[in-house]
Amino acid sequence: MFRPEIKVIDCTVRDGGLMNKWQFDDKFVRAVYQGLTAAGVDYMEIGYLSSESAFSRDEVGPWKFCAEDDLLRIIGDSEKKIKFSVMADIGRIDHHDILPKKESVLDMVRVACYVHQIDKAIALAHHCEDKGYETTINLMAVSTVGPRELEEGLDDLAKSRVPIIYLVDSFGAFYQEDIELLAKKYLERLPGKTIGIHAHNNQQLAFANTISSVICGINYLDATLYGMGRGAGNCPTELLLSFLKNPKFDVRPLIKVIEEEILPWREKIDWGYFIPYMVGGVMNQHPRAAMACMESDKKNQITEFYDQMTSAASGI
Amino acid sequence: MFRPEIKVIDCTVRDGGLMNKWQFDDKFVRAVYQGLTAAGVDYMEIGYLSSESAFSRDEVGPWKFCAEDDLLRIIGDSEKKIKFSVMADIGRIDHHDILPKKESVLDMVRVACYVHQIDKAIALAHHCEDKGYETTINLMAVSTVGPRELEEGLDDLAKSRVPIIYLVDSFGAFYQEDIELLAKKYLERLPGKTIGIHAHNNQQLAFANTISSVICGINYLDATLYGMGRGAGNCPTELLLSFLKNPKFDVRPLIKVIEEEILPWREKIDWGYFIPYMVGGVMNQHPRAAMACMESDKKNQITEFYDQMTSAASGI
Repeated sequence: MFRPEIKVIDCTVRDGGLMNKWQFDDKFVRAVYQGLTAAGVDYMEIGYLSSESAFSRDEVGPWKFCAEDDLLRIIGDSEKKIKFSVMADIGRIDHHDILPKKESVLDMVRVACYVHQIDKAIALAHHCEDKGYETTINLMAVSTVGPRELEEGLDDLAKSRVPIIYLVDSFGAFYQEDIELLAKKYLERLPGKTIGIHAHNNQQLAFANTISSVICGINYLDATLYGMGRGAGNCPTELLLSFLKNPKFDVRPLIKVIEEEILPWREKIDWGYFIPYMVGGVMNQHPRAAMACMESDKKNQITEFYDQMTSAASGI
Repeated sequence: MFRPEIKVIDCTVRDGGLMNKWQFDDKFVRAVYQGLTAAGVDYMEIGYLSSESAFSRDEVGPWKFCAEDDLLRIIGDSEKKIKFSVMADIGRIDHHDILPKKESVLDMVRVACYVHQIDKAIALAHHCEDKGYETTINLMAVSTVGPRELEEGLDDLAKSRVPIIYLVDSFGAFYQEDIELLAKKYLERLPGKTIGIHAHNNQQLAFANTISSVICGINYLDATLYGMGRGAGNCPTELLLSFLKNPKFDVRPLIKVIEEEILPWREKIDWGYFIPYMVGGVMNQHPRAAMACMESDKKNQITEFYDQMTSAASGI
């Protein structure tokens, strides 16, 4: 599948950072940066854009802030050929703390929001656009949003100046039939806009759902190296590039980064297909309960977890 | 997706046994048997049907043979509600060693073959049918078969009495677009027959491709608990049952068996998503090279493996 409009955004540092509070050293981030560049990936999402007052550097690593000095240290003397994106969470970034584009090496700000925050997200995205950045709005947890509310939200987004809107399967709950229905709805309700996909892998469908998205006309594709990301993780970048067959892509540099930098993390952090994440995906639940289970000494007591989740659901 | 014609065949012991030479103890096999029965799964593929002269019991466990005594020991005093299937490899089973159905607790014999073995497979399957068994033919490695050869093979299968023909993605190489094309071809060329799917997970697409198969009209679905199977493994049974929404299915007994019997094996055997298997899938190669890499002390030297595979391919 080769379509020149398709762009790949690797979110390894940003989404993977949710598993280790962005405690990646410079060697890791630089290797990812160089590997993605050599592979021809379009964007590297290097972290979150947050104000220093919102979090303590004692608790979280530099990629929760993406301060200019930290970014410049990664680039070093190299010529920056890949675009940098960051994610902004509403309420965690003071508008005044965002530098004008011409003073920053960042290229794109992606605003993540829930459906009730769409107005705030548009305001923040417009602010970033006015400062010179490319922008997207990533509407999270859409698997829990009813059809009327979703259509109203999409209509608000349609009226905005934000050019790229993301379909986000936060809970890894969607089957390809859901993707097809929602991709059609997004494309219809958001005329002239580009649509993106961010999928989670709770049901081993992140890559498959990304392929379905491509077939449906979605052009911005999120992925992470070896699927590294919160909980079950994401669509693996190496699989996505292999599928896309665009001659600008080269998978080999990704394999090298995975060998040198991702496999050692895989020894320390459990992302991927585990039954608690799978149960969360099937039940369309936020991964926090599954993550708590996975971080506890009851990680393998999956029947107990299943019973808790299903009895909680039937108690509603 | 609920369609009464759909049958689920769990192949944990048969396909998982390819990873440990069928060295499962009775406790394991009985737990799988009881769990699948409680979950409402239609068939349990308990192993291979081989003649005792073909392999040594010093090397392989009992589920390489599926002798009647071994099967009866698993059933014990319970009322057998699930059907048993076995896989037969051409040349590994003497026709005379197959008991008449009325002397066996087996219900179905599935004949695995490559495209050049179709005539032999039909002969063996007819022999089993004449002895009273349900039968299928599972045409392996179809991702390497050219269109003329495939159509000739399907035409031969169409003329046989074998009622169920399997589409097998032996190398985990297919995308959903391939599945759609092939499912259509199988259904057209095999009028009146039921089609099955057996998918491998090299590209994390085994479950997704099984869903695509269901949507295309395929009704016999192979899966294994927690995806346990050769190399990258298979479509996970727990995901498949969760998707199917047939009220006869209950996922909980599967979670319990995974907790008690599969997770301990997961500590000892590496099946699932690993880069060598992924590279094999992308390159449409037999998993033997990836398995050799995974069993060696170079398991994590994935760039070297990638270079070997790609240079071998370009040398053809």
